[in-house]
Amino acid sequence: MTLLGRLGLDARKPRSLQTQLSGQLKELIQRRELLSGEHLPSTREMANDLQVSRNTVVAAYEMLVGQGYLEAHLRSGFRVCSAAQAFRTAPVNVATTERKLTLARPRNPVPFRPTQPDVNLFPMQIWNRHRTKALKRGACLLHYQSRFPIGLDELRQNVAVYLRDSRGVRCQWHEVAITSGSQQALYLLARLLLEPGQRVYMEDPGYPGARNAWKQAGATVIPVAVDDEGMRLPEGKTPPPALIYVTPSHQFPLGTCMSLGRRLSLLQAAREAGSWIIEDDYDAEFRYTSSPQPSLQSLDKHRRVIYIGSFSKTLFPALRLAYTVLPPALLEKFTALNSIMGDCGPLIDQATLSSFLESGAFYAHLRRCRRHYAERQSFFLEQVSHFGLPLNFPITGRGMNLAGNLPQSSNDRVWSERLKAAGLDIPPLSAYAMQPTPSGLLFGLAAFEKGAIQRGVAKMAEVFAGNRGR
Amino acid sequence: MTLLGRLGLDARKPRSLQTQLSGQLKELIQRRELLSGEHLPSTREMANDLQVSRNTVVAAYEMLVGQGYLEAHLRSGFRVCSAAQAFRTAPVNVATTERKLTLARPRNPVPFRPTQPDVNLFPMQIWNRHRTKALKRGACLLHYQSRFPIGLDELRQNVAVYLRDSRGVRCQWHEVAITSGSQQALYLLARLLLEPGQRVYMEDPGYPGARNAWKQAGATVIPVAVDDEGMRLPEGKTPPPALIYVTPSHQFPLGTCMSLGRRLSLLQAAREAGSWIIEDDYDAEFRYTSSPQPSLQSLDKHRRVIYIGSFSKTLFPALRLAYTVLPPALLEKFTALNSIMGDCGPLIDQATLSSFLESGAFYAHLRRCRRHYAERQSFFLEQVSHFGLPLNFPITGRGMNLAGNLPQSSNDRVWSERLKAAGLDIPPLSAYAMQPTPSGLLFGLAAFEKGAIQRGVAKMAEVFAGNRGR
Repeated sequence: MTLLGRLGLDARKPRSLQTQLSGQLKELIQRRELLSGEHLPSTREMANDLQVSRNTVVAAYEMLVGQGYLEAHLRSGFRVCSAAQAFRTAPVNVATTERKLTLARPRNPVPFRPTQPDVNLFPMQIWNRHRTKALKRGACLLHYQSRFPIGLDELRQNVAVYLRDSRGVRCQWHEVAITSGSQQALYLLARLLLEPGQRVYMEDPGYPGARNAWKQAGATVIPVAVDDEGMRLPEGKTPPPALIYVTPSHQFPLGTCMSLGRRLSLLQAAREAGSWIIEDDYDAEFRYTSSPQPSLQSLDKHRRVIYIGSFSKTLFPALRLAYTVLPPALLEKFTALNSIMGDCGPLIDQATLSSFLESGAFYAHLRRCRRHYAERQSFFLEQVSHFGLPLNFPITGRGMNLAGNLPQSSNDRVWSERLKAAGLDIPPLSAYAMQPTPSGLLFGLAAFEKGAIQRGVAKMAEVFAGNRGR
Repeated sequence: MTLLGRLGLDARKPRSLQTQLSGQLKELIQRRELLSGEHLPSTREMANDLQVSRNTVVAAYEMLVGQGYLEAHLRSGFRVCSAAQAFRTAPVNVATTERKLTLARPRNPVPFRPTQPDVNLFPMQIWNRHRTKALKRGACLLHYQSRFPIGLDELRQNVAVYLRDSRGVRCQWHEVAITSGSQQALYLLARLLLEPGQRVYMEDPGYPGARNAWKQAGATVIPVAVDDEGMRLPEGKTPPPALIYVTPSHQFPLGTCMSLGRRLSLLQAAREAGSWIIEDDYDAEFRYTSSPQPSLQSLDKHRRVIYIGSFSKTLFPALRLAYTVLPPALLEKFTALNSIMGDCGPLIDQATLSSFLESGAFYAHLRRCRRHYAERQSFFLEQVSHFGLPLNFPITGRGMNLAGNLPQSSNDRVWSERLKAAGLDIPPLSAYAMQPTPSGLLFGLAAFEKGAIQRGVAKMAEVFAGNRGR
């Protein structure tokens, strides 16, 4: 059988023609149907015979040269490398041994998945211009820079300016640490601040990612109830917690903004007990009707507050760049542990973000998002009321999400499952809670355009109508 | 004093004109020299008065609107926002409180810093084409994808193909985990496999990043000597180690390639003792004279070997993408811990890398690097011999680094310091060792062109000549 007869390319397959060709040649070599030293047809012939472009054949041959299967000779073209068959002591036949696991593809979120920004609003072209500019500074951004274990200094400075201006955070740039996502910061702080058995106060319902970090460090998580002024610290004599984790600007998931009184007593309690406070300011930039509340950290005169935020919500989640403002007492330890644990994201992205912040493009983007998100929230509430859904939204006017209460007798997990069966992604509030919590659902609205919102609410109406009285 | 009189822009300063202007206006608002409701000159007037482009002024105003200092009105232009002064309860004057810490800039490595690839060889244009292609697939790569805690499936598949073909690694794609740099994998494995007090065998001298990870997990690190066949396991009855960390392809830092006999007895010892082996294949792709040795993992029938590698050396360090091939027994635990710890690098980079691998561009780049690195190594050795330096290089012909022995009586730390004073970055071998080790220096050659190598060796010659007999 000729070589050609043993090859079969199919343009309809998901893998490129080039990959198909190189893969098939590789198999022939592994199965010794092509032997050491054997010549391959010239790229021109092969392209003609297979009816593909010559570039496809050149690329496939080049790839096999790179992997040591073929050798390229100036005059005689390509032939099977003499070492190819000797080297592969244990050739693995990909086609037969690869378990039939389907490759998953990245997906877009489905309504009303919470805490997702609208990444279509992100000005990728402007971002790419800043990236190109950063790359023009030369190759140093491609090198490993052991001098920046907690982020490029220029980025830390621009983040400090942003946080001072927009969130009232008291900080100097060297107190800002960049991490690869805020989850990394939570994990790192858990390792740094918690001994097994120590107590952590957490809002309940609260953020599961944080809870996982405390538990991983062996800490005991104490759920603390939230009312309409925010977290209500337990009264009476209790053993002091090592750590208190709060989301004061926009409580996750309920949406409460912690009152000034509570903020001040929280700070005092932490000072008296020697506890650290982590303020996770994950969703503070999106306020539509009320004026901004400065961060809890801005009220803290004794540097007990560790401030965490992320560009996942304000730019896009897959960027994986977040920031932690550290009290001076923790700065050195945090830096040391981050050096051992890994790093703080690619330098190119850091330099791009720094330039994006400094140019003001960041602020323009935030304004645009705020306008859209505000509209989407209002529109959603209109639709919910239009369809007469049995949902009550106590806190509106800010945030990417809205927590909606269901009638008290209903089981929110059951409703969430029914909505899931209808193609909607709306988690129950009880999924975030350690203790019994009022029945409700969490809606993310930022990522969805009005059409999707309307269709989503209409679908919800069907689900609610279909299950009424059951 | 007019507003104009209080502003002063200077094009020679490092910060852009726009940032200078917005910063100065912000200060005037904070100091209440510009009051709530006060109108600013139109962008045209301001640009004229300051002799800057109108775009600069527009951008500066826009930035201040974004930060809540100014309001834009359709007819009346820009004025100071009424909330601007009320909100800033604790204005921080940047100029006075910022400690005088100089911002560090990214730098290029200095000869002969070890384990640095030549990032100037990296085909950034080709990479950017793959990035653009990946971005064209739509916005899903910007979203958070909780389905990929250990990397995009398509990248894991392309890495699996690469490792099977080039390193003989036995793996299926779902056993490949992507991490943000190999240090993250080392840290994660330390957390997963080690209890405080457990023993880790490590080559001595060896890689300090790994040692730090074991120590951070509370393990006891046992240094194991290396001879010309590689790590020599201690004989006789010793308590079995929980973990054995090795660099068999090209021992770090000495460069030894572990013999087949040693490989087989290492695998057997690990199986008998129930120890895990971590094979760090950090520098296996660069072989210039000898034929490639398949990985230790390829000989392991009992899946005790965890295989780690990184694109830091083959592409560029700041990419922060590495891979770990996990035995089935560890896959689930590794995935769970990685979800809590953070993540595995930006999806855009992962998709770009996947496409770069699949296209064969990766292999073409490797070939090009190999050619240059081989030339640089030979050239360096010629120069060392030309200048008659008192250095002996027992292992050559592969790797990015060369370990050079000094005369036995000399103190390598002292020499390294002297070379540092002359502007060279050449660490002493003893810096990698826990136990006394032959005096020597570690040279990285890959990142430096011939001119730089020549100048570096000449400078070394001066240092050695100047200190002779002292």
